[in-house]
Amino acid sequence: MFPLADRKLVEVCYTPGQYHLYKEQFEIVVVIDVLRATSAIASALHNGVDKIIPVSSVEEARAYQAQGYIAAAERDGQVVEGFPFGNSPYAFMDESLKGKTVVLTTTNGTKAIQMASDRKTVVIGCLNNLQALCDYLIKEHKNTLILASGWKDKINLEDTICGGAIADILLESRKFRADEDSTVAAKFIYRSAKQHLWSFLRSSSHRRRLIKLNIQKDVKYCLTLNTIDTIPILKDGAIVKLETND
Amino acid sequence: MFPLADRKLVEVCYTPGQYHLYKEQFEIVVVIDVLRATSAIASALHNGVDKIIPVSSVEEARAYQAQGYIAAAERDGQVVEGFPFGNSPYAFMDESLKGKTVVLTTTNGTKAIQMASDRKTVVIGCLNNLQALCDYLIKEHKNTLILASGWKDKINLEDTICGGAIADILLESRKFRADEDSTVAAKFIYRSAKQHLWSFLRSSSHRRRLIKLNIQKDVKYCLTLNTIDTIPILKDGAIVKLETND
Repeated sequence: MFPLADRKLVEVCYTPGQYHLYKEQFEIVVVIDVLRATSAIASALHNGVDKIIPVSSVEEARAYQAQGYIAAAERDGQVVEGFPFGNSPYAFMDESLKGKTVVLTTTNGTKAIQMASDRKTVVIGCLNNLQALCDYLIKEHKNTLILASGWKDKINLEDTICGGAIADILLESRKFRADEDSTVAAKFIYRSAKQHLWSFLRSSSHRRRLIKLNIQKDVKYCLTLNTIDTIPILKDGAIVKLETND
Repeated sequence: MFPLADRKLVEVCYTPGQYHLYKEQFEIVVVIDVLRATSAIASALHNGVDKIIPVSSVEEARAYQAQGYIAAAERDGQVVEGFPFGNSPYAFMDESLKGKTVVLTTTNGTKAIQMASDRKTVVIGCLNNLQALCDYLIKEHKNTLILASGWKDKINLEDTICGGAIADILLESRKFRADEDSTVAAKFIYRSAKQHLWSFLRSSSHRRRLIKLNIQKDVKYCLTLNTIDTIPILKDGAIVKLETND
């Protein structure tokens, strides 16, 4: 049904620093920061937050705060002083945030979102919305780049695994193809990891960092597959919930 | 015997473009370009070539050629016009090259070697000299960075697998530790691949490119483990065979 020539590309880029090497051919970019920015964003919108405005710097977040916005800021896994919360998904589930707009800056994820905003469509991926996101991407059937946020321009395991999972599902649909070794490698890492995600990620430096920060509850939440069907999408500089009739 | 604090680092960097993010802590850099530069260099020295002078540009190679040097140049998998050979390991085994100095420039590998020359020790790795190289690295017991040449600043599978193999062997010695997710991921890719390296690399874009160039014989040679015990090392700008009393 889909000969190779009709298949769309799906590729995984491991870090924002490599984005320029990949981006040209893609109409859709999926930004991933499993621990924890994109998991938090998806959960926030799923739980009734109206909009998330992603900003790159703490200064921008402060400027919004000065204008009366609710703003959240995380650097190196911790809440930045002067902000009520950082990127914990649980913080974004608070009843008081329903219907509200939240400004967010994080170490890696919001920078990747800003960077990807030069493409036509930017959606937000995590393990929590994996299957719903893949169903959407298969239905859209466009050249799709998965941009992992990484950790300070280096690869991280959890984003690579999530990117590999998306690529694997899209490739299995036989409507997509991959040309890059980064995509093939991510798919194999995901397949190695998927039966024992938690113990696999014990190897991850990032997870070790997070254990020090006492956020095991967050980590368990972020590493659980298919708990929500919300797909966050960037529209006019803000992230909102994709409506099925969009 | 080696508590964690006494272990040395072994890390894998996937591309020259990320080298600056890694290099500071390392005394030894292992440069890898399995298909085909570092496999060719190791084979050349193993078969009696005296020295390889790695240069980054075709222009530099031409300048040496004009001075009477034997020079080899490869770009995009093919021999550059005006040069007798590129980076085929078999070309470097020619009897006429015994005892000679050869100047070499390749698409990825020689650039990575030049880049790594800011560290104290630079050695050359490939699958052909895997075990001999690891024995040396374990004996030296210094902070060791494996620099994969990649393909035009993107990751490639064969270098990542080779880097993962070296990291795996060093970590198994219990004298080394790894902090980076890139290293953990490379180790898992190697473990996924090692029982069926040839079929695994069928997924590799790079190998597909090389099949088009009709160099299957070279590819099979480069993907064969532990055929030689030569360790090439950079000394005063030229790559020579490491002597055991070095």
